Amino acid sequence: MKKIVFVRHGQSEWNLANKFTGWTDVDLSEQGVKEAEAAGEILKKEGFTFDLAFTSYLKRATKTLNIVLDIMNLHWIPVIKSWKLNERHYGDLQGLNKAEMAEKVGEEQVHIWRRSFDTPPPALDEDDSRHPRHEKKYEELSESELPAAESLAMTIERVMPFWEKEIVPKIKAGQKIIVSAHGNSLRALVKHLDNISDDEISSLNIPTGRPLVYEFDEKMNVKDSYYLGDQAEIEAEMEKVKDQAKN
Amino acid sequence: MKKIVFVRHGQSEWNLANKFTGWTDVDLSEQGVKEAEAAGEILKKEGFTFDLAFTSYLKRATKTLNIVLDIMNLHWIPVIKSWKLNERHYGDLQGLNKAEMAEKVGEEQVHIWRRSFDTPPPALDEDDSRHPRHEKKYEELSESELPAAESLAMTIERVMPFWEKEIVPKIKAGQKIIVSAHGNSLRALVKHLDNISDDEISSLNIPTGRPLVYEFDEKMNVKDSYYLGDQAEIEAEMEKVKDQAKN
Repeated sequence: MKKIVFVRHGQSEWNLANKFTGWTDVDLSEQGVKEAEAAGEILKKEGFTFDLAFTSYLKRATKTLNIVLDIMNLHWIPVIKSWKLNERHYGDLQGLNKAEMAEKVGEEQVHIWRRSFDTPPPALDEDDSRHPRHEKKYEELSESELPAAESLAMTIERVMPFWEKEIVPKIKAGQKIIVSAHGNSLRALVKHLDNISDDEISSLNIPTGRPLVYEFDEKMNVKDSYYLGDQAEIEAEMEKVKDQAKN
Repeated sequence: MKKIVFVRHGQSEWNLANKFTGWTDVDLSEQGVKEAEAAGEILKKEGFTFDLAFTSYLKRATKTLNIVLDIMNLHWIPVIKSWKLNERHYGDLQGLNKAEMAEKVGEEQVHIWRRSFDTPPPALDEDDSRHPRHEKKYEELSESELPAAESLAMTIERVMPFWEKEIVPKIKAGQKIIVSAHGNSLRALVKHLDNISDDEISSLNIPTGRPLVYEFDEKMNVKDSYYLGDQAEIEAEMEKVKDQAKN
């Protein structure tokens, strides 16, 4: 049975502050650390093991992965890090509070920025210190790859080639893989795997720190998918994320 | 200027208990975590940065590295893990207390096991659950590579080819590298770099959590080497390790 496990990083300091985060490299909150620990514990309890891990260039995802691997005694497996698994770049909104923005520009505008499939948020200036061209870790990116703001559609355009080229061949080769990533990079993958429409994907919320398992047949068709953990809690968490702009 | 930084993992739970550890995969102690944090802080303060990291398959080294990289905001750089950087395998002594052993077999015998260049400690039985053939993470090793006990000479035989093949070319290519490893795998490297004799190397003690910098000229000749941090403290720590069998 071929399978893969996705995990969205635990709560970050800015999830907690209800801010647009995107590529801002914020740390896990205390609760986020606990969520990552719980993810590791349930994976261990359910008998999962991994040969290989993928994560983004962002601390909240790498740290979640490190915590999970540490608990599972899998600190020794190879970890491949890529910016292509980063969160959606939130452009000029990065650092702003979602509820304050809703007051300022209206809830509908914030909803569009957060949930439109192909409308990117306002772009960052190239001179803005938040622009990724000023960070050493994005030096390897070509001019055309450097985002100043991304819609979900634009995020999908970088996540999916990475999935097809780097991850799928290794699942096919029988490797057991865990991917620690972000709300929108995981949404890109789930949209593809579950064949979700452009309109519907934005209302799908992936809870933090909950291992999400996909099982495949030999042809890489999805046979089953499920979250590990208390199903009622998970459903409640999936509903809760929707209400953030209203806080 | 080409350089590399070595760091011996912070104090482990078994350093603390004064036990022979070897390939036993024990965690860092609380003090070990603090030592790793201090290593990250001083590297940051001194303006170091890295493009690439190496570590062993043992938790105390990977965790030390994760802590250092986290503090330096370098969680995103590639990390190469290899069993070839593991601590010397301590064979049948793994898990035994150094002072108790000294009482039982005499201080001189313990000193030979700990400090002889080419006398390995008593070997582990293949059936012993401590033998690495029973651990998934060593599945990749050939029969001839699987150690049941190693002398320092045997440790050098696996560390040095890894150094020459995997690390040196990357230093030559200008990459800034940190290696988080162990007392004896680092002793192997220091012996080579500082041209220390077989007789003298065993009395060289590398303190835990102290970044050790080597600088090279274009031909990879060592130009300088030094520990970062309080030099008097470091010298005291180097003396202290020698006295462990007498505790």
